[in-house]
Amino acid sequence: MIVGGGGVGTMAAYNLEAGGLAETTMILRSNYDVVSRQGFRIDSCQHGEIHAWKPRGGILAHIDRTGSIKFDYVICSTKNIPDGPGPTVAQLVKPYVTPGHTAIVLIQNGINIETPLIAAFPHNAVLSGISLIGVIEPEPGHIVHNDADKLMVGYFPNPGLPDHATQEKAARDFIRLYSASAKVEASYDADVPWTRWRKLLYNAVYNPLSALTDSDTSRLRLSARQDQRDPSQSHNVLDHLILPAMREIQAAARAVHQVELPDALLESVVEADSIAEFLLPSMQQDVQKGRFVECEVILGETVRLGEGAGVQMPVVRTLYCMCRAVQFRAKERAGLLDVKELAAKYHE
Amino acid sequence: MIVGGGGVGTMAAYNLEAGGLAETTMILRSNYDVVSRQGFRIDSCQHGEIHAWKPRGGILAHIDRTGSIKFDYVICSTKNIPDGPGPTVAQLVKPYVTPGHTAIVLIQNGINIETPLIAAFPHNAVLSGISLIGVIEPEPGHIVHNDADKLMVGYFPNPGLPDHATQEKAARDFIRLYSASAKVEASYDADVPWTRWRKLLYNAVYNPLSALTDSDTSRLRLSARQDQRDPSQSHNVLDHLILPAMREIQAAARAVHQVELPDALLESVVEADSIAEFLLPSMQQDVQKGRFVECEVILGETVRLGEGAGVQMPVVRTLYCMCRAVQFRAKERAGLLDVKELAAKYHE
Repeated sequence: MIVGGGGVGTMAAYNLEAGGLAETTMILRSNYDVVSRQGFRIDSCQHGEIHAWKPRGGILAHIDRTGSIKFDYVICSTKNIPDGPGPTVAQLVKPYVTPGHTAIVLIQNGINIETPLIAAFPHNAVLSGISLIGVIEPEPGHIVHNDADKLMVGYFPNPGLPDHATQEKAARDFIRLYSASAKVEASYDADVPWTRWRKLLYNAVYNPLSALTDSDTSRLRLSARQDQRDPSQSHNVLDHLILPAMREIQAAARAVHQVELPDALLESVVEADSIAEFLLPSMQQDVQKGRFVECEVILGETVRLGEGAGVQMPVVRTLYCMCRAVQFRAKERAGLLDVKELAAKYHE
Repeated sequence: MIVGGGGVGTMAAYNLEAGGLAETTMILRSNYDVVSRQGFRIDSCQHGEIHAWKPRGGILAHIDRTGSIKFDYVICSTKNIPDGPGPTVAQLVKPYVTPGHTAIVLIQNGINIETPLIAAFPHNAVLSGISLIGVIEPEPGHIVHNDADKLMVGYFPNPGLPDHATQEKAARDFIRLYSASAKVEASYDADVPWTRWRKLLYNAVYNPLSALTDSDTSRLRLSARQDQRDPSQSHNVLDHLILPAMREIQAAARAVHQVELPDALLESVVEADSIAEFLLPSMQQDVQKGRFVECEVILGETVRLGEGAGVQMPVVRTLYCMCRAVQFRAKERAGLLDVKELAAKYHE
């Protein structure tokens, strides 16, 4: 079962079925109507051009129990916005989880995302999926997969499952299904905390920074390089913001999970995107479209974990608090709050 | 002589002439054509409705020497953007300054703004004007003055003028001219550093924060109050960003100029704008219009002075560096740089 039928979820479903070892069912929201009529159109850099594709297990429009199907895996590839108006991830996957059987695969950003799942499903394996895929959905049902699908899968230890071997097996079995297409690369992630903190170096810094300044990762670095070369400029966004923020995350990773992110890694994450490509991090795209941002799983949890372990995080905390204000604006745009009413209430 | 014929400069000119003790000349840029044809239209909450007004000393279109006129005062009320493409403030006022005679009145935001003026004019009084006026120019030549003109004038000690009494007299004489209309309030500022650091509490915090999150000062506080009341939220933009930033400025003011900004003052600056009014700080308006921001005089100098005196300023420094990226975008929009070209250069 795939919950989250956007680009990531659709390519996961397609790839799993292309391998021949899995049958998938997808839950769709905004693209349900068009896909039920004409299937997905997929332009994939790894699978080729596909027309009128539907998963063999069918598509579903609503979050309903699917009767007697006992799913082996429920993949959740939605955005993760616990402070938004929608259902939580645990609520989304619940109808498809058979206690003690189904493994839950979270292909999602952020840190500490497993805690609510483990609380809700104390007897199920909860897997971590870190995806490096590049994929967009320019219009409903049309998936453009433009950068190779690389997936790392490991497990979040569930204290309700004392047997680690079973949880590792759930992850390795999933990798076997996912690799069967021989088109994509799926590998076992033996150190999930390391992988997630490493991803945060980029996500907790470039995501909010690009969203708040409306500057992609190339423009941010170009701005810094111009300022570095200008003798009248004392500061620049790279040396005095991006790197200090990454060092706070480095310190938090060490204090919280004994994870060592070497200095050379920080430097390479800074240059992760080709400067000639002008890539927009997902949060910048979200803000441009007035959508909710994943500020809690990417920033809030990072700051709470780090500060909870005694690490000072003034830079990342500043980015986080600014994202709280951005989220407030998104709620206002979505009609979820009325600022005039609120102001009148607080003005009394 | 008034350099900067926008809202602040025009109301200063009008008020000075209304008092009957001064004759003013104005340098105009974008509104020169319309004002030369039909004069200013002024809707003022303190002076009433005025049509077809021109200063008695006339208007000038270009920054040319005005021949033999020996100005007593040159008022500069332009934006102050030393990192922008235009002339510096010193270059702007130079044609109208008679060495040893003209007093230069800077009605401008920021800190450390006097240093380049004192360097360029070692034998002239340089005065500090802090204006609380509310005024906009909805179309060229149409000035809407909607909040009372209150001006505080003091002097920046010029080491080339050992006689402090003369500099104080220049300030007090200006106040006499400015108060003569009996419509506005002008007062002597005996402690310019205090007044300027106090103004920075608002300007160095609310200005960049509102610009970067596109949230006026009411929305920022409403967002914080919602988060304060939500038990699932650990942080909010007021307690974890606005107040920490103000405390950094408080520490910098103490270390740099032995200026004491009491805690109660910080709290009152947070609530300076009525929450029911949804006021947009000037920098938010500038970013919305894609204009350059006053990030050096408001943020850069603050951080350089504070850090130079040993104060850690991670929050304000973060806001400053983000404004550097915003300024880079403004330069790009103004056609002053080509990001593809720059990226190709750095990509090699």
